[in-house]
Amino acid sequence: MIDWDARYAKRAGRMAASEIRELLKLLEQPDIISFAGGIPDPALFPQAEIAASYHGILSDPARAAAALQYSVSEGYPPLREWLAGYMANLGVPCGRDNIIITNGSQQALDFLGRLFINPGDPVLVSDPTYLGALQAFNSYEPSYVHFPHDLAGAAGFEPGGAKPAFGYIMPDFQNPTGVSMDMAEREAVLGLTHKLDIPLIEDAAYEKLRYDGEPLPPLLALECERAGGIDNGRVIYCGTFSKTVVPALRLGWVVAPREVIRKLVLIKQASDLHSATLNQMVMFEVASKTLDANIGRIRSTYKARRDAMLAALESHMPQEVTWTKPLGGMFIWVTMPERLDGAKVLHRAIDEARVAFVPGGAFRSDASGRNTFRLSFSLSDVDSIAKGIERLGDVLKSAIEANAD
Amino acid sequence: MIDWDARYAKRAGRMAASEIRELLKLLEQPDIISFAGGIPDPALFPQAEIAASYHGILSDPARAAAALQYSVSEGYPPLREWLAGYMANLGVPCGRDNIIITNGSQQALDFLGRLFINPGDPVLVSDPTYLGALQAFNSYEPSYVHFPHDLAGAAGFEPGGAKPAFGYIMPDFQNPTGVSMDMAEREAVLGLTHKLDIPLIEDAAYEKLRYDGEPLPPLLALECERAGGIDNGRVIYCGTFSKTVVPALRLGWVVAPREVIRKLVLIKQASDLHSATLNQMVMFEVASKTLDANIGRIRSTYKARRDAMLAALESHMPQEVTWTKPLGGMFIWVTMPERLDGAKVLHRAIDEARVAFVPGGAFRSDASGRNTFRLSFSLSDVDSIAKGIERLGDVLKSAIEANAD
Repeated sequence: MIDWDARYAKRAGRMAASEIRELLKLLEQPDIISFAGGIPDPALFPQAEIAASYHGILSDPARAAAALQYSVSEGYPPLREWLAGYMANLGVPCGRDNIIITNGSQQALDFLGRLFINPGDPVLVSDPTYLGALQAFNSYEPSYVHFPHDLAGAAGFEPGGAKPAFGYIMPDFQNPTGVSMDMAEREAVLGLTHKLDIPLIEDAAYEKLRYDGEPLPPLLALECERAGGIDNGRVIYCGTFSKTVVPALRLGWVVAPREVIRKLVLIKQASDLHSATLNQMVMFEVASKTLDANIGRIRSTYKARRDAMLAALESHMPQEVTWTKPLGGMFIWVTMPERLDGAKVLHRAIDEARVAFVPGGAFRSDASGRNTFRLSFSLSDVDSIAKGIERLGDVLKSAIEANAD
Repeated sequence: MIDWDARYAKRAGRMAASEIRELLKLLEQPDIISFAGGIPDPALFPQAEIAASYHGILSDPARAAAALQYSVSEGYPPLREWLAGYMANLGVPCGRDNIIITNGSQQALDFLGRLFINPGDPVLVSDPTYLGALQAFNSYEPSYVHFPHDLAGAAGFEPGGAKPAFGYIMPDFQNPTGVSMDMAEREAVLGLTHKLDIPLIEDAAYEKLRYDGEPLPPLLALECERAGGIDNGRVIYCGTFSKTVVPALRLGWVVAPREVIRKLVLIKQASDLHSATLNQMVMFEVASKTLDANIGRIRSTYKARRDAMLAALESHMPQEVTWTKPLGGMFIWVTMPERLDGAKVLHRAIDEARVAFVPGGAFRSDASGRNTFRLSFSLSDVDSIAKGIERLGDVLKSAIEANAD
């Protein structure tokens, strides 16, 4: 029998199972109130429009033949054309040659890791940061350095060591903390990437899910102004339809200088040829017809859940516990006393209270921050949120008492 | 402005545009007879069944919600269960834990390159071999060594140098040559991988497209017998629905020891989370209902086209030109006199005769074999095949005469 471990490439040592993905399996137990996955509520999916679009395309023989056939690696041209208009509305003047379609933004992160990371290269990330980004980048064996916690002072920051392969940041309603960057922080982070002369990957997954205040420009929009056009800039923007339409068609996009898009097209070709043609045609129809109309309902639903979760935390959490107050997105980040471990508390929460969340350690490139966890408010109704947080408060009170003496 | 070339990882130097994918753009010119892409005929797609399946799933609110939501990285369990039965019919006893769903077999090749290739590792491939495999593996910076041309003597072959990361071979109707391995060759290649103690990747993309003779067992079936069960074996089998159902849902699968599947699931999670849930549900319904019934029509259509192309080659090619006689698949491999270059002949063929094919150099890991090219007979009707090959014969006659003196 073959010794598989001896045959795997060195990078396989960095491939580890995700706590979140394993936790998804818990969702199948109906009595669990899960605040774990960053999962959209299927009641908000434009199901009728999606069904009508598949039906329309597949009942027209000529369109069906094109929809079921191989297509170009760049992505369906009308979808890329529509996205160019979408980006223009965000202050990013660009053409369809600045855009490639990917299988969700997860695939974009994988491709960007492949394009930029040599083994051992530092990558500059937030701490904590999106778990899926760490997983995608780990295949290419980077080391990690962290943006300073005070982002407003980032322009003067000196990470030391080798030049990072790139910076990676989520400016709006970050996964996992829910925290957003203000204008000064955006400018300072851009300034840092100019000083270091490195690319900056902007992950805009939650950008459209703002519940309070006015939208701020994407880093890519600020960079287009600063650099005099998208093709002169250094920001690579990753968008996704997973949070605003549906996740399971697996469609996202990258906006970048044409030079970078050309390389990503070669990577797409080598990786899986192209994203499903039919799904791209459907997404073009559904997004162009329904995204603007549906986003209001999505925002008001999630806003009510965020408010319910913040109110329940206020009512039920012991005073030693603190949490973020996000202006949008899907997540609240909870900090317990240092002596508590999120992973241990999770097991108690599931066993004693039938409540799930994601321990904070999953979002870190090192073993720090074990006393934190991420709550998602997107999938549960307000009653379940109130009930779940009350039960979780009891678990935390008892954990804190047990560890107090 | 950023110096992108200086920022790319070293592996980006191995990413080059595919001649085939660029050629796909020629298909948009209606007066070209294209024998270029290995593209299935959309008239053979089970369009009605696909349309009915999307409609059935999306008109049931509960199924629609599941179909549009995030799902597990392994793939849709009923599809994997059905594939376990499909593999059992090929002589491969396995369970659904031996199977992962990928975005076509192209993604499987990318993942397997990632799992096994360290930079500089030799990979053992046929010469010529599938262009997409070279593209997928190149991301991980291998070198290449070649199986001997006499595969029946492979068991005694000594590639020399470092141990290869794996062997990669397509036993049935190989892309690009159309050539198949007989039983002795299959046993010899397996014997070689046992002697070298390396994994063997079996690409079964065209396996079901046999037009003459009896099917031979997949290498994986032979290895299951030899090793005493799939989990003890060293063969990793890549299948696809692209040639038997439709390509654009981007669905394929890998069958391997559970140990290897577990690693591939982690790679899938990091790469794009999972393949589109809805497409997997549709493929399960359509493949389980129609694959066996449709395959006869697919075979008889392509068989007639192969016969037409072989007859036209016999009638119109100059005597210095030779070609393979495939028992199945989509391709015939043409060898011209050594002094001719397939890429130059292609440009004349397009300009003078409005006929396209793929120059043989694209299928080689080095610059050898420039005097060859690949013809695909899958997409053109028999009249176009007769006309196109006649025109191509004239181009070759004139090219041979021009180079004769």
